[in-house]
Amino acid sequence: MAEERIVALLHGPDRAGIVARVSGWIFARGGNILHADQHRDREEGIFFQRVEWVPAGDIEEEMSLFQEMAKKDLGMIADVMRSSRRPKIAIMVSKFEHCFSDIVLRCRSGEINCDVSAVISNHENLRHLSEMFGLEYHYTPVTKENKGEAEKRQIEIIKKSGAELVIMARYMQILSESFLDNVGVPVINIHHSFLPAFAGAKPYHQAFERGVKIIGATAHYATKDLDEGPIISQAVDTVSHRDNVDDLMRKGRELERVVFANAVRWHIEGRILTYKNKTVIFN
Amino acid sequence: MAEERIVALLHGPDRAGIVARVSGWIFARGGNILHADQHRDREEGIFFQRVEWVPAGDIEEEMSLFQEMAKKDLGMIADVMRSSRRPKIAIMVSKFEHCFSDIVLRCRSGEINCDVSAVISNHENLRHLSEMFGLEYHYTPVTKENKGEAEKRQIEIIKKSGAELVIMARYMQILSESFLDNVGVPVINIHHSFLPAFAGAKPYHQAFERGVKIIGATAHYATKDLDEGPIISQAVDTVSHRDNVDDLMRKGRELERVVFANAVRWHIEGRILTYKNKTVIFN
Amino acid sequence: MAEERIVALLHGPDRAGIVARVSGWIFARGGNILHADQHRDREEGIFFQRVEWVPAGDIEEEMSLFQEMAKKDLGMIADVMRSSRRPKIAIMVSKFEHCFSDIVLRCRSGEINCDVSAVISNHENLRHLSEMFGLEYHYTPVTKENKGEAEKRQIEIIKKSGAELVIMARYMQILSESFLDNVGVPVINIHHSFLPAFAGAKPYHQAFERGVKIIGATAHYATKDLDEGPIISQAVDTVSHRDNVDDLMRKGRELERVVFANAVRWHIEGRILTYKNKTVIFN
Amino acid sequence: MAEERIVALLHGPDRAGIVARVSGWIFARGGNILHADQHRDREEGIFFQRVEWVPAGDIEEEMSLFQEMAKKDLGMIADVMRSSRRPKIAIMVSKFEHCFSDIVLRCRSGEINCDVSAVISNHENLRHLSEMFGLEYHYTPVTKENKGEAEKRQIEIIKKSGAELVIMARYMQILSESFLDNVGVPVINIHHSFLPAFAGAKPYHQAFERGVKIIGATAHYATKDLDEGPIISQAVDTVSHRDNVDDLMRKGRELERVVFANAVRWHIEGRILTYKNKTVIFN
Repeated sequence: MAEERIVALLHGPDRAGIVARVSGWIFARGGNILHADQHRDREEGIFFQRVEWVPAGDIEEEMSLFQEMAKKDLGMIADVMRSSRRPKIAIMVSKFEHCFSDIVLRCRSGEINCDVSAVISNHENLRHLSEMFGLEYHYTPVTKENKGEAEKRQIEIIKKSGAELVIMARYMQILSESFLDNVGVPVINIHHSFLPAFAGAKPYHQAFERGVKIIGATAHYATKDLDEGPIISQAVDTVSHRDNVDDLMRKGRELERVVFANAVRWHIEGRILTYKNKTVIFN
Repeated sequence: MAEERIVALLHGPDRAGIVARVSGWIFARGGNILHADQHRDREEGIFFQRVEWVPAGDIEEEMSLFQEMAKKDLGMIADVMRSSRRPKIAIMVSKFEHCFSDIVLRCRSGEINCDVSAVISNHENLRHLSEMFGLEYHYTPVTKENKGEAEKRQIEIIKKSGAELVIMARYMQILSESFLDNVGVPVINIHHSFLPAFAGAKPYHQAFERGVKIIGATAHYATKDLDEGPIISQAVDTVSHRDNVDDLMRKGRELERVVFANAVRWHIEGRILTYKNKTVIFN
Repeated sequence: MAEERIVALLHGPDRAGIVARVSGWIFARGGNILHADQHRDREEGIFFQRVEWVPAGDIEEEMSLFQEMAKKDLGMIADVMRSSRRPKIAIMVSKFEHCFSDIVLRCRSGEINCDVSAVISNHENLRHLSEMFGLEYHYTPVTKENKGEAEKRQIEIIKKSGAELVIMARYMQILSESFLDNVGVPVINIHHSFLPAFAGAKPYHQAFERGVKIIGATAHYATKDLDEGPIISQAVDTVSHRDNVDDLMRKGRELERVVFANAVRWHIEGRILTYKNKTVIFN
Repeated sequence: MAEERIVALLHGPDRAGIVARVSGWIFARGGNILHADQHRDREEGIFFQRVEWVPAGDIEEEMSLFQEMAKKDLGMIADVMRSSRRPKIAIMVSKFEHCFSDIVLRCRSGEINCDVSAVISNHENLRHLSEMFGLEYHYTPVTKENKGEAEKRQIEIIKKSGAELVIMARYMQILSESFLDNVGVPVINIHHSFLPAFAGAKPYHQAFERGVKIIGATAHYATKDLDEGPIISQAVDTVSHRDNVDDLMRKGRELERVVFANAVRWHIEGRILTYKNKTVIFN
């Protein structure tokens, strides 16, 4: 597993022979394909592929030549990365710690291959825990009046930290359209219901009121339409009349941890393509 | 298992000592409690209980005395039935057969303790299958113009058949408020999504469009507000970008069968109490 | 969906460039690949692929040329079939009806694309149901003394019926090594536990005794080592101290139906390759 | 939720009227029952109950009177505790951190109501993490030669720490019969398979070899028969031919965390009774 691999995510107009040409190109240059997975949306006429290979020659050269070939020969966009890359991420939190701790520990143990470069919060609650983990904690209080300013400050911190991904670990503020336009990197959010059910505030209370027999959690990319972004991962658990709102919250925390970790890991490993407000996930 | 048991479903205002009094009453009369389960909604101040026992004396007498005691001494409503009862049910269908066949076979094999006394459909598609099972098939075509008439005819068939429950096995017409007011027995419906997500028409198409990673099915009591009745059973399965609408439908059929069968069985076995548009299920 | 497609299942020694060559061959002849999925067991050095395409020219010719190319150029074994094929299957049953009915109805409705050409049983219990479904029922009683004779008779019935697959729908006799050697077609069995736990007789009783919190069912290819064949599909459900053996059986029936149907459908659709007593399932 | 409650776990010979007598006793003394759940093993003739109530008078007096009543009047053993109790636990670890971190964070956040009073390990690997959490780390290397000595030392640490429960968070040594006889408190272990499948060493490797489609994890009380103790909680996840042993381990870690946390929480909350190598869990 020590070999450096190239991971390429391709997408573009579907046409005959793409698989043959991609695999043929790699094969001809002596590369060894370890994984290849593709998907076609026939109605939309879009082709998607993830391919992972060990190149025979110089890795940087192979990466740029592949990207060029994809564009010129296939008319496709290729996102190409080294398997060993370890990007930085920024975590936004409020008061709940379960998703935050969970991601931090997975990064520490190497299960998710990234480094937490900043923790940003509108509260002081998680400062102690964050510092215990040796992370820099940025307190950016948010009020109705200062929201624009606060978000500017948050974006500055994110940019300065070098983060290539922002994750909202139960950050309880709605990010403005301006924030999302200017942050410059993808943002992953966790919503504590099986979307599209119970979008908006207090989903566990909504679920309790409706008397559902199943609750869920959803990790998705944040977009300007709240809780409407492309869904990455969902999980559910059964509940009954015996479960009160506190029980739903406790069961929900388990789900939130799992779908959030899935989403972050798949993003970091280059397994997600988005289109038409949906995701294709090569996992 | 041959002993005849009494099953009582109680509900009413919560107060101290109900469990002690119910169990004390049965114990004092020599009854042997086999199962007892209770639930309190503390916010609403309502108490619910299901108790199942073998009476020492005459079963009919015990049943009526219990009901009287519950009302007079506890101020509670008691629904009391014999464990051996085998009620009749009417099944409404359209073109899909999977829920229909499934329920019919479960009744035949004794897994659900009831008899199908009528099959009612707005199409002829399932006549052959229905007659193969030896069931009477009533074709009641429904159009915009004749809907009122057709529903009257359906209610007549249901009443004449002696059905104590109507189940909509993917019956693809919306039952009018008037039908529900006049049918005189509970109606269980199956909706092919995890409600409240994707209420209304074509839920699998909606789910596909939204790009969810989990689909579901929901069995609920039909009320005048479409897809808004008390939820009885829900089940889900995972899906991915590889699943098209046909795949969702195929996976969904498995879920529909299971939640529908659960709902019918629990209803027949006296395991469901409804309140505040929710269910308490003693299973 | 009306287009006839070719489905090819390939396996053989892994080497570089197989994907490129297979897809290149199809592409060069004007074929349109609809699905392609592959797997490599790196430790064993084996390559597996399932590819499904619409050929441009004559389908029979394409099929035989593909097989030839796979063998000569790639050194691989290719199992090639038309997507429209509707093979015959023989069902062996004893007294339980749930898996039997379930498969018959799925074949009837077209969910599984095959025809039941014979029902074979060591009991008379399911004759009525079988005849209700319009199927030929063969009663072949099995005793210690006549087992060899009975199995010979069963093999005759299977061969005469033209079945390309035998499925044991809770057939409660152990098939002898001689039967499996001579039947000439694959045999799928359902075992009512999550193998390898609770192999052998009365798995629900074993599960109850052990006090597990999860029960399961397993569909697998029958081999001479009882309950040791390649596993195709498994499913589980949760249980608690409240569930007695009857409850386990009831819950188990749901699982058995699902895993059995999965196994039969995947087999019929050419989605399963076996090696080293394991399965590769392209679904 | 601020009210102090009594939790009683009862078990003993089944006879008529126990529920009536227990609830009657509490009711007569002005207590308010919040939860009551019971179970009868009819074959064995054993009755089990968990009851939780707010006493009207002095809590210590009520606790001892209840215990007395249970023994004298009902011939039952009652384990009685205050809902607010926060016992100490000792954690045994080796090199894997996921279960360890998970439990520590759940205790910190109050999700599990206990304090970690000692961390004991046969390796130094988790010292840093443990100290980061502010916990005392005891390194007790274990070899074939010193095992008896090492276990004595471990028992000393446990006793000195005041732990009322020992949990093995992927502690990779087998505890001797002598250890279990002398430790004086219950021991909970996590095994990384769905027992009884794949008992013993390297269960993920065993699962991979067998080609199962489902993997699991099991939390159980440790007994002298390795992996044979009463099962408390089990969870499973699906796997396919695509998952190698590393994937199984990664998926398994999610399961291990969940079942281990369930087991510890239920134990601390007085929800578990054991008999006949099984558990009754009132959750």
